Amino acid sequence: MSKPIEIRNPRTGKYDYVIIPPPERLLVQQCNRLRRAQQNWFDLGLDGRIDVLLKWKDAILSNRDKLTEALVIDTGRLRESKLEIDWFLSGIDRWCRLGSKLLQDTEKGTSIPFINLQQTAVPYALVGVISPWNFPLLLSTIDTIPALLAGCAVIVKPSEITPRFMAPLMNAVSTVPKLRDILSFIEGNGKTGEILVDNVDLICFTGSIETGQQIAIAAAQRLIPAFLELAGKNPAIVLKSANIDLATSAILWGSVFNSGQSCFSIERIYVAEDILEEFYHKLVAKAYKLKLAYPTLNSGEIGPIITETQAAIINEHLLDAIEKGGIIHCGGEVEEKGGGWWCHPTVITEVNHDMKVMNEETFGPIMPIASFSTVESAIELANDSFYGLSAAVFSESRDEALKIARQIDAGAININDAGLTVMMHEAEKNAFKFSGLGSSRMGVSALTRFMRKKAFLIKTNSNYDPWWFNK
Amino acid sequence: MSKPIEIRNPRTGKYDYVIIPPPERLLVQQCNRLRRAQQNWFDLGLDGRIDVLLKWKDAILSNRDKLTEALVIDTGRLRESKLEIDWFLSGIDRWCRLGSKLLQDTEKGTSIPFINLQQTAVPYALVGVISPWNFPLLLSTIDTIPALLAGCAVIVKPSEITPRFMAPLMNAVSTVPKLRDILSFIEGNGKTGEILVDNVDLICFTGSIETGQQIAIAAAQRLIPAFLELAGKNPAIVLKSANIDLATSAILWGSVFNSGQSCFSIERIYVAEDILEEFYHKLVAKAYKLKLAYPTLNSGEIGPIITETQAAIINEHLLDAIEKGGIIHCGGEVEEKGGGWWCHPTVITEVNHDMKVMNEETFGPIMPIASFSTVESAIELANDSFYGLSAAVFSESRDEALKIARQIDAGAININDAGLTVMMHEAEKNAFKFSGLGSSRMGVSALTRFMRKKAFLIKTNSNYDPWWFNK
Repeated sequence: MSKPIEIRNPRTGKYDYVIIPPPERLLVQQCNRLRRAQQNWFDLGLDGRIDVLLKWKDAILSNRDKLTEALVIDTGRLRESKLEIDWFLSGIDRWCRLGSKLLQDTEKGTSIPFINLQQTAVPYALVGVISPWNFPLLLSTIDTIPALLAGCAVIVKPSEITPRFMAPLMNAVSTVPKLRDILSFIEGNGKTGEILVDNVDLICFTGSIETGQQIAIAAAQRLIPAFLELAGKNPAIVLKSANIDLATSAILWGSVFNSGQSCFSIERIYVAEDILEEFYHKLVAKAYKLKLAYPTLNSGEIGPIITETQAAIINEHLLDAIEKGGIIHCGGEVEEKGGGWWCHPTVITEVNHDMKVMNEETFGPIMPIASFSTVESAIELANDSFYGLSAAVFSESRDEALKIARQIDAGAININDAGLTVMMHEAEKNAFKFSGLGSSRMGVSALTRFMRKKAFLIKTNSNYDPWWFNK
Repeated sequence: MSKPIEIRNPRTGKYDYVIIPPPERLLVQQCNRLRRAQQNWFDLGLDGRIDVLLKWKDAILSNRDKLTEALVIDTGRLRESKLEIDWFLSGIDRWCRLGSKLLQDTEKGTSIPFINLQQTAVPYALVGVISPWNFPLLLSTIDTIPALLAGCAVIVKPSEITPRFMAPLMNAVSTVPKLRDILSFIEGNGKTGEILVDNVDLICFTGSIETGQQIAIAAAQRLIPAFLELAGKNPAIVLKSANIDLATSAILWGSVFNSGQSCFSIERIYVAEDILEEFYHKLVAKAYKLKLAYPTLNSGEIGPIITETQAAIINEHLLDAIEKGGIIHCGGEVEEKGGGWWCHPTVITEVNHDMKVMNEETFGPIMPIASFSTVESAIELANDSFYGLSAAVFSESRDEALKIARQIDAGAININDAGLTVMMHEAEKNAFKFSGLGSSRMGVSALTRFMRKKAFLIKTNSNYDPWWFNK
């Protein structure tokens, strides 16, 4: 038996839950079982697979309270947990609606008169998903649902930091026999993830750059695709012409949602120097009003920092900023309360790119603000980063905003908002720089990346002409 | 200065050409220069880039004799060299025609009433291409042309085995100033390729599985995309209902074209037992008529085996087959003639999957034939391989052929032909198993894979609603 892993409760700091990673031999066996069952799943056809996914949705709906409860303990926060479940359920709906449009074979004549072309796509047999702790349900299912719809079997290893939601989720799966055959969630740690990568046909990973690189290398050795969505250090540019009320509200929520523990979080704010003072005063005033969700879940808007490691990183970034001349206007420290770690929304000015808070992912409700004098320098600052996930531009002129957005090296750029990507699933976007690798996980590609394209080239006449020697 | 590399002439065996790999520092500098020039290239716009590519085509046309001559010395064969140039030129035409359809930004409303979505795609700055010796021109430009059209700068390192064609090709490039700024062909060996992978933003590789894995790993470390097209061991299935005349002609040419030195070559033939005897007698009769292109280029259809290493591999596979019970009906050995290596089309029966000639890429004009009793066993045999590039099925019933084709694990399957993939550029196909990785290099994906998708999510109203807390 593997060594048990004790799991910390983010509100109490107590280690009150245990998981036991599966032994390698059993995990390999499980992968083989799922892969064997996949052909039947594919043969069910799209409509059959949609039926099963909708049954899963129903099973979740009747199990919703238990799933919410588990997610709340995993993450220490309530509203985002409810939202995760909503997003998960609407994701099933959305994919079931879209799927039939995307999975049709085509047949056509070609530029060569005696050839017909038939195009189809076939799913990878077994997709592996390794997901993080910041949105345990959403990020363990965002790739899983389209992979299942495409006809793949799926094995998911969520983060060992937030494993409690798996039990109610798998309970729901177990009530749907055809789903149970081709979908497993497994408990485990980094070692479990390594074994997984070596036993699947395609791997999806959401998490850190370092682990992402390791997974990409392991996948490259086996020549299997790796789709990675990694860290961000997303900039917001606030132009002189911006609606400051809108910009401060949107940036605040784009920074503090889930206590900043989101890959799309705004982590750097560049404000036109003419409006800097007004901007940060308004931002501080709004930030100051937000309350910690402590001692009860409903005490406020800001949940705990989920991991102690992350709490330490945030404090390190804050200390480093102060050491180098940053000025803190509200918030300013991750504090221990009742065993959990809590951070009030924090605004910092007088920051520069030598500070960790401006050049490494912080993953906390921290809003460092720098000013700029010219639009060119704002773009330069926004692009001065190893990351390229998303960004935001605020201006009353849509044309001005778009012109700037086009010059920012990132896959998704919000105009006059800071978090639309979470609501909008149609937008195709790739991660730039070190923020990821592989097809978009939004839009149509999110489904088609789980399939290999296959072409049937059909000769329609029956004589053979060795054309290459008849030149 | 790096150590010079002496290059063998495949017809004479003489080392009559020298290349000198660039020192690392200069190569890095060259990559940086190309990357700096890329923005201007992109800013030219699609029409501007098409103009430049068509000028390249004109320059090649007026340099055609010199390019043909160099390719003929590189590879020892005439017809395939002329074809390569035709394909290259028609590739430019095709992409210039297609491009404008593929590179349009779109704008649309979304499922959320107050969001507009604008989608665009931006090219990777610098694409690296590492290409093999079997079709020196075709395979060094098949990825290059769409990458240039997409707006990337491109640096190409062709195989050091066939470098002579680069001089006339670069001469043509040098007459087109805007092209010269963003396209380089460089001489070099494996070490040069390693440096290249570490200095580009996306890498395309055509060649062996082993090198492909190394390149994929190096790319994974840098989190850049790697598109690999690797080896094949492509099966042909000949059903009882097949037109045997057609099947033998198509399979013969599918095996011996370019002396079998093609990734799409038919390398395994499975024939319904009822027609086995008729099939191989007809195949042998046709194979026997083909002549070596020795002593002159026009003496026959079959050119030399380009590398001594490959000649040794083919002989090793043949010896291994005979050792294990294979029976050779014509051809049968790679022989030295006048310093080159030559192999007559070779038919082998009584083969099985323990033989190298059935389970490793041979890359020679070798046609091993096994029989099958049931269609199921034919499919099983075809799929019993580490490779999954292409395949062929022969039957007078299109439905029967397609039904089988659907069950073969390969990206492109010819029905009643064995080499349509080289003529047909519309077919989207992925490599299966160890035959490759990444997007299709044919069809629309061939271009779009050089671009990252970028989404602009535009909020169209100006109030801010912290919706996630208003549930």
